[in-house]
Amino acid sequence: MPPAAAEPLTPERILETTEEVLRRFGPTKATVVDVARALGVSHGSVYRHFPSKAALREAVTDRWLAKSVVMLEEIASAPAEPAPSKLESWLEALFEAKRHKAGDDPELFATYIVLLDENSGVVEQHLTELIEQLSRIIGEGVASGSLSAPDVPAAARAVFDATGRFHDPQYAADWLTPTITAEFEAVTALVIRGLRA
Amino acid sequence: MPPAAAEPLTPERILETTEEVLRRFGPTKATVVDVARALGVSHGSVYRHFPSKAALREAVTDRWLAKSVVMLEEIASAPAEPAPSKLESWLEALFEAKRHKAGDDPELFATYIVLLDENSGVVEQHLTELIEQLSRIIGEGVASGSLSAPDVPAAARAVFDATGRFHDPQYAADWLTPTITAEFEAVTALVIRGLRA
Repeated sequence: MPPAAAEPLTPERILETTEEVLRRFGPTKATVVDVARALGVSHGSVYRHFPSKAALREAVTDRWLAKSVVMLEEIASAPAEPAPSKLESWLEALFEAKRHKAGDDPELFATYIVLLDENSGVVEQHLTELIEQLSRIIGEGVASGSLSAPDVPAAARAVFDATGRFHDPQYAADWLTPTITAEFEAVTALVIRGLRA
Repeated sequence: MPPAAAEPLTPERILETTEEVLRRFGPTKATVVDVARALGVSHGSVYRHFPSKAALREAVTDRWLAKSVVMLEEIASAPAEPAPSKLESWLEALFEAKRHKAGDDPELFATYIVLLDENSGVVEQHLTELIEQLSRIIGEGVASGSLSAPDVPAAARAVFDATGRFHDPQYAADWLTPTITAEFEAVTALVIRGLRA
């Protein structure tokens, strides 16, 4: 990436470049100076947007996680889809998103595993958002009579926990096995059946 | 443990002592010579039972895992308990066994995490045995009409996967959180409901 200081230095540009620098140098070696150099600016200019290396790493982690939240929100808020099939689509999309992140760019994924460890607050917030989406889908099903759950948030959490093997990055190595799709489908079917009214 | 060479040198005594040595020195530093010294025998005597350090580590891993299989087998083969409540008892006993292993002796548990990584064949065999027990419980329920599963082994695997957060040692840190029991109960109830006829 050639330095291009003429473009305005937005937080988004800094975060994109930080991702690139992390991919190139790895999470241990990448510094704010590397990011500034890649942008063709002083490191002071970067610090004006992100007051510390930790803040920058946190923001880049948040941005990475936020992408899938936006995509899943479209499914969660789609009108007119019955809750059981919406739940299935949502779980499938979550698994696909995680699997692609892990498979398409394994180095960047490994980098993010390190960042997730560092930024447990960001991760907690991300998981809360995902479980909140699940709650809305299950709540719709309860309202329309297709699903049954005495405690909707607890049911959402249970669905999220029960499908952990298909979204927790700890299991990324399993996502490459030939049986993983059948295993995903079996767990998803079991869980949705467990919620049917 | 004082040397006591007068007792016969059985494989079981060697494995017990190996566990003790692993607990004391950690998995990186423990050697066959340490085990022999603790037993008051030559390392050649140990090698007569276990031809290599790897074989000894594999056997000690196997012994550790086998303990819970035996305890769970009693539940799986108990006569006259209806399948849904047997399934619940079995999942509870599995979680309790893992949680106690992790909580009662964290150093030994950490050691075994290293050994589990080294001995993936032993771990695979262990998981197969557990899923086979689940298959028998679910098969009983299908036969008696209390459970429904078109493919019993696949359902057993799905139950095992869906409850992974409560038996996979990767999650051991979560087992200390105050909400874990409620989370376990929610997932277990969901999964059993998903299998009800």
